[in-house]
Amino acid sequence: MTVTKVQLRISEAEYKQRCERLLAHLNAEGLSGAVLFDRSYILYYTGFAFIPTERPMAFVMNEHGERGLFVPRLEVEHAQANALIDRVDHYAEYPGDPHPMHVLAQMLAAMGVRKAIGADEDGYPWILGYRGPRLSDLTGAEVRNLRPFIEDQMMVKSPAEIALIRESIRWGNLAHLLLQRYTRVGLTETEVSQRASNEATRAMLDAIGPIYRAQAAFSDGGAGAGYRGQIGRSSAIPHALAANLTFQPGDVLVTGAGATVWGYESELERTMIIGEPSAEQRRFFEHMCALQETAFEAMRPGVCCSDVDRAVRAYFEKHDLMPYWKHHSGHSIGLRYHEAPFLDTGDHTELKPGMVFTVEPGLYVPNLGGFRHSDTVLITETGIEIMTYYPRDLPSLIIPI
Amino acid sequence: MTVTKVQLRISEAEYKQRCERLLAHLNAEGLSGAVLFDRSYILYYTGFAFIPTERPMAFVMNEHGERGLFVPRLEVEHAQANALIDRVDHYAEYPGDPHPMHVLAQMLAAMGVRKAIGADEDGYPWILGYRGPRLSDLTGAEVRNLRPFIEDQMMVKSPAEIALIRESIRWGNLAHLLLQRYTRVGLTETEVSQRASNEATRAMLDAIGPIYRAQAAFSDGGAGAGYRGQIGRSSAIPHALAANLTFQPGDVLVTGAGATVWGYESELERTMIIGEPSAEQRRFFEHMCALQETAFEAMRPGVCCSDVDRAVRAYFEKHDLMPYWKHHSGHSIGLRYHEAPFLDTGDHTELKPGMVFTVEPGLYVPNLGGFRHSDTVLITETGIEIMTYYPRDLPSLIIPI
Repeated sequence: MTVTKVQLRISEAEYKQRCERLLAHLNAEGLSGAVLFDRSYILYYTGFAFIPTERPMAFVMNEHGERGLFVPRLEVEHAQANALIDRVDHYAEYPGDPHPMHVLAQMLAAMGVRKAIGADEDGYPWILGYRGPRLSDLTGAEVRNLRPFIEDQMMVKSPAEIALIRESIRWGNLAHLLLQRYTRVGLTETEVSQRASNEATRAMLDAIGPIYRAQAAFSDGGAGAGYRGQIGRSSAIPHALAANLTFQPGDVLVTGAGATVWGYESELERTMIIGEPSAEQRRFFEHMCALQETAFEAMRPGVCCSDVDRAVRAYFEKHDLMPYWKHHSGHSIGLRYHEAPFLDTGDHTELKPGMVFTVEPGLYVPNLGGFRHSDTVLITETGIEIMTYYPRDLPSLIIPI
Repeated sequence: MTVTKVQLRISEAEYKQRCERLLAHLNAEGLSGAVLFDRSYILYYTGFAFIPTERPMAFVMNEHGERGLFVPRLEVEHAQANALIDRVDHYAEYPGDPHPMHVLAQMLAAMGVRKAIGADEDGYPWILGYRGPRLSDLTGAEVRNLRPFIEDQMMVKSPAEIALIRESIRWGNLAHLLLQRYTRVGLTETEVSQRASNEATRAMLDAIGPIYRAQAAFSDGGAGAGYRGQIGRSSAIPHALAANLTFQPGDVLVTGAGATVWGYESELERTMIIGEPSAEQRRFFEHMCALQETAFEAMRPGVCCSDVDRAVRAYFEKHDLMPYWKHHSGHSIGLRYHEAPFLDTGDHTELKPGMVFTVEPGLYVPNLGGFRHSDTVLITETGIEIMTYYPRDLPSLIIPI
């Protein structure tokens, strides 16, 4: 009899597989090893999640596939708990004396990472007041950029990754439903967003239980839904920052909802209207839905990202909507809220099964509002699956007065 | 009669002054201009806050002091609303065609930024799937690193910056008080943290009113307090990630509280104990307080960061506490949750009036817990001001059972 435990995470076998693909690339390119500083890349290859600070951390793999983590004293126990890691090297502190990067240089020498090195940056990026030497100056080695290879690898999601994105969608959907339910004239975006996000987060934590991990970079994770200031006239500004506005009759609202599940993200956005929509509001809402449908219809394996965005642009042009255009049709999503490739006229990447995109062409009308739905869409063997399932039609998205 | 309007923000005059100092540096170094991609630097010189994505943005200043913002179409109206900016250049989208960086190259040529250029990075950093050319390859110009100058400039805070940090501390204090009040055996960290953070945020938004802006990079701002999983045995892991633990009798808790006010941060952390502390818990708590006092006593204008951390280390060594040491005594804080200089044996920066530090030496005891208070401390002309004022003594920090 086989007893399988439910796992809501990436398996060790899958992390190993990811590392093997990286190793094959190193060997093919004649690189003596890889040094990765980027939090998302370290999470992708090892499952090791941390809060990025001025203290440098790195994942190192040599040409034989030996895997190491380079961390400050602070993170030693956390790093040692990672079963996939063969060695943990640490320094006392940043800036410290000697500088941490000298400890990294010793680690690289000990692991035989010398000549040509693949890295995501030529040294730890200078964030949060960090200062330090380049990897190339420190080691005398040639440093080649691994980012293009890694981004290409991360683009196609595995079944386990898709399952985590699906789980994220479930709880983003709940947060959004509560957001819509609690939004009323006279309330502020802050109180409504807090209530919806809190209840959805608690439901998620209770439903998934102790196997839940957020693995989020800048928050405690959980589920969330809100308006980010995209309320009334301000909704015409696509990346508005929250300003605690009060809901009023006639407001056009643009929402955003999601949840972080083992680092994976999803995106659900809806345009809602408070009270009976005006003729103008209806017209732009309908065009926005048609734009999204145009993108859906253009998406399937084998076409290019640019084909999708060009089809959407053609609709914009045909209906004289270019004055209201502000951005491309969507982006990929996974361990990061935005990632490559992009549904953009300038991105000629081919759509492949396992890629996950947001689809979100928008219309921004001064003094009226913004109109944008965003759905998370999976490329399948035969077409697409629209993974988000929140209602998209106008009658379902009117907030009663 | 003079009528002054209350302003809880950095004035235009101060942004201009900051730019003038940067300009003087460019002129002294013979640089034809500055190109800054870092969100915090752009916020510091212009007050322009945005969500960083794969779409490159930059602040450009030429050797005559002309100021420009380089943005995607999406951000044009937002950038044009900034009164301090002389010109806004934009591109349609990323990756687009031509690549956005070619539009930046045209902008630099038009502004006369050619020969030697000062920049924070040699091109837009490759975040969130972005790929693009180096600034040096694009322009043929020599690119020199401006980060050391900028970090030095940001280290000493103005009275207006200190006022914003003080405002942040007010609301961090409220969030912390509510966190302590609501923490009870049997509740989870998530529900307690949500309740405290929500109430403190709503109180702050109502008390400050419409002049409040968060200007936060990755959140809607507001006030917050929580445990980030530093509960019971897990509190021995200083940068633990939240895991929704349930409070139990005997737990050692390490908190964190703050608020974002026009981008400025503060830090307040306390060690609390659930129920009557054990003798071991009392002993480590008292050592932790003495370590913090040791740092306070060592801090004044004219001494070095390293002097402070050495004094703290001497206490560790004198009392055989080095097995419980995991990190240095503190870091600066301002527009970023960590910044330079650091209270670290390897940082020989001189303490100057206007610098703002966290002071937070910690003790981490396996199977018992972590012990760390963090206070936000201002260097004054004559010594220090401990800006955070939350009780530090053990009797005030016991959660009744």
